[in-house]
Amino acid sequence: MSLTIQAARLWDSILELAQIGGTPDGGVSRLTLTALDREARDLFTRWVAAAGCQVAIDPIGNMFARREGREADAAPVLVGSHLDTQPSGGKFDGIYGVMAGLEIIRTLNDRGIETKRPIEVVNWTNEEGSRFAPVMMGSAVYAGARGLKETLATVDRNGISVADALNEIGYAGDADLSNRPIHACLEAHIEQGPVLEQKGVPIGIVTGGYGLRWFDIDIHGRESHAGTTPMGLRQDALVAAAEIISKLTAMAIRFEPEARITIGDLSIAPGSRNTVPGHVQLKVDARHPEAAVLDQIEQEITTLCREVQSGRGTRTEIVKVADNAPVRFSAEVIAQLREAAQAIDAPAIDLVSGAGHDAFHVARIAPAGMVFVPCAGGLSHTPLESATPEDLALGCEVLYRAVLALANT
Amino acid sequence: MSLTIQAARLWDSILELAQIGGTPDGGVSRLTLTALDREARDLFTRWVAAAGCQVAIDPIGNMFARREGREADAAPVLVGSHLDTQPSGGKFDGIYGVMAGLEIIRTLNDRGIETKRPIEVVNWTNEEGSRFAPVMMGSAVYAGARGLKETLATVDRNGISVADALNEIGYAGDADLSNRPIHACLEAHIEQGPVLEQKGVPIGIVTGGYGLRWFDIDIHGRESHAGTTPMGLRQDALVAAAEIISKLTAMAIRFEPEARITIGDLSIAPGSRNTVPGHVQLKVDARHPEAAVLDQIEQEITTLCREVQSGRGTRTEIVKVADNAPVRFSAEVIAQLREAAQAIDAPAIDLVSGAGHDAFHVARIAPAGMVFVPCAGGLSHTPLESATPEDLALGCEVLYRAVLALANT
Repeated sequence: MSLTIQAARLWDSILELAQIGGTPDGGVSRLTLTALDREARDLFTRWVAAAGCQVAIDPIGNMFARREGREADAAPVLVGSHLDTQPSGGKFDGIYGVMAGLEIIRTLNDRGIETKRPIEVVNWTNEEGSRFAPVMMGSAVYAGARGLKETLATVDRNGISVADALNEIGYAGDADLSNRPIHACLEAHIEQGPVLEQKGVPIGIVTGGYGLRWFDIDIHGRESHAGTTPMGLRQDALVAAAEIISKLTAMAIRFEPEARITIGDLSIAPGSRNTVPGHVQLKVDARHPEAAVLDQIEQEITTLCREVQSGRGTRTEIVKVADNAPVRFSAEVIAQLREAAQAIDAPAIDLVSGAGHDAFHVARIAPAGMVFVPCAGGLSHTPLESATPEDLALGCEVLYRAVLALANT
Repeated sequence: MSLTIQAARLWDSILELAQIGGTPDGGVSRLTLTALDREARDLFTRWVAAAGCQVAIDPIGNMFARREGREADAAPVLVGSHLDTQPSGGKFDGIYGVMAGLEIIRTLNDRGIETKRPIEVVNWTNEEGSRFAPVMMGSAVYAGARGLKETLATVDRNGISVADALNEIGYAGDADLSNRPIHACLEAHIEQGPVLEQKGVPIGIVTGGYGLRWFDIDIHGRESHAGTTPMGLRQDALVAAAEIISKLTAMAIRFEPEARITIGDLSIAPGSRNTVPGHVQLKVDARHPEAAVLDQIEQEITTLCREVQSGRGTRTEIVKVADNAPVRFSAEVIAQLREAAQAIDAPAIDLVSGAGHDAFHVARIAPAGMVFVPCAGGLSHTPLESATPEDLALGCEVLYRAVLALANT
């Protein structure tokens, strides 16, 4: 089918941005609030200015490029994502969502379409969290999930604060935009997972976000000599940890397809080949779309660790270090996105996002929604990140139609 | 029963040596070829000189304190261990064996006993391997298991060579003692394991040493996003590693009581809580007294890794990075030690040493044997290392009787 948006223009914008911080392996390294981030922000500013937008910048550096509507006081529709990348990132994560917003403005301009409500293309500051913790900083401050003052005082590993970094690149704004009504907030993004590719479907309508709980599981055994300690007299923390890893994974599979349980990191002490490990810490990430199921998973983790402990003379402690509630997107925004996909006969399925996104924070204060498009192998946060111009265009077209509809209601 | 050796004198010698490099927590930190090692060597030299011995020093700094026998040309009986410690070591590991040798000389002197053969109390250089690799350096060079020249060129982390360190402390000798016949070599040591303590037996007659093989097992999976990758689409290197750890341990238990299989260390990449691990390396230490069983264990490790790999989409590589053959001690020396224990009604059991010792190297060129005494909790290489004066004295008495018998045959 023929699209309203211009696929080639969208693609070219993404590739041009990818040159700022581009790496020889085809990736992008453009950490938030660096000179490279400034360069990307400056280019974005020139583009939206050429498209007739006014840019407002808030105190955490979020950029709002506004195309006026017929009703100047009407609550705007926001559409955007982020321009910062991981240290070893790709061309699409975040950038796609901002460029899709830009392409929507350009398409409306080309066609001389006026909307009732203003539309604002947003670049949220520091979504990646690679330089300053935590992730999704700009949208968190905007939505009131984090205080501005403490966030500006956050420092990177060189002791440079967010406030200093914003001033250094000239993006410490003073626009107070947090407390106004927002009609809707939309975001396009690559899936960062393998589901759309595996199913051969180009569009994911995101109905919400996974809840997430992080646990540190400490297993205390007894350090001893690998040569002189018979198997039966050991209290091996790693052997107990291995059993916990296997059982946690088996449990996640019981809660399939939604549950995701990962042990992404562990530390071992003393960490010497010929010493029986005395201590292991597992860093666990557990996710599910339903808070009630996360409660059940948390309970089972506790039971399971107690069971493993009882047979081995090891001792286990569990500490919950993060607890993010599941996110539900707006029924109205979801309906508009579904309708848009149907209107152009684009195959679409519902998805729940396992990754975090700026739209999650905005969902606390306004109706929000997202569109996903496939990425090769489900890969992101790597120079290998890849998406096709066709899929990106299709996602942008769905977003365009939904934004247009929402901007006129 | 009453002992021939003087328990209190042995104990006092050990405690006096423990003051050189003694730490506030009751441990000893006396790395090889440091100023503290010189101080310990100097004190040992004064003690053996006072006992009428001549000290010879070879080019790797091994010290031989000789008490002459009736037959000056007869092959000597060696008895000793090492005076160096781990960075955070205890009072007994190594030191006990040298002080037991000294106590034997003092006892022979007290009683005016002349032996047919000379007896030499030995302090082997750098048994611990903490400053210069590898462990058991002095005895390895003495027994021809390592070249002198390359060993002297080995450097510590500050770039100081063994040769320079020996010169610095004045213990680079020129005695050529490597190629002479040795009648027997004996060593007393704390067990460094829990078996004697668990069984309530004060004497272990060591019949040999475990063979040891080290393997690096690399598990290659696929790094992916913890939030967006369904369980069924993962290639999780850590989950595969956990299964290997569990199966290796179960296998070791099948080969009980002799087999010892330890995964003492592992590395994980990228090592981020919310990323499915793409790579894990396990550092495996496998030991058994029989080479044929080690062959079987090695074969089973290969099979087991292949089985784990097949179901998971992960790929496993195994590299053998060390292969030390089992050691068998001399039947004659073992018989003399057993007889000595029986003569004083000391409960004794046979043990195979899971840890390495200087006597293992000497066993390549001469009849060798060892006596173990219990240490609290099986602990060594820690300030918590502990042994009772009674057990140490009993071990020394057994050694005394065996040395005396061997020095007269």
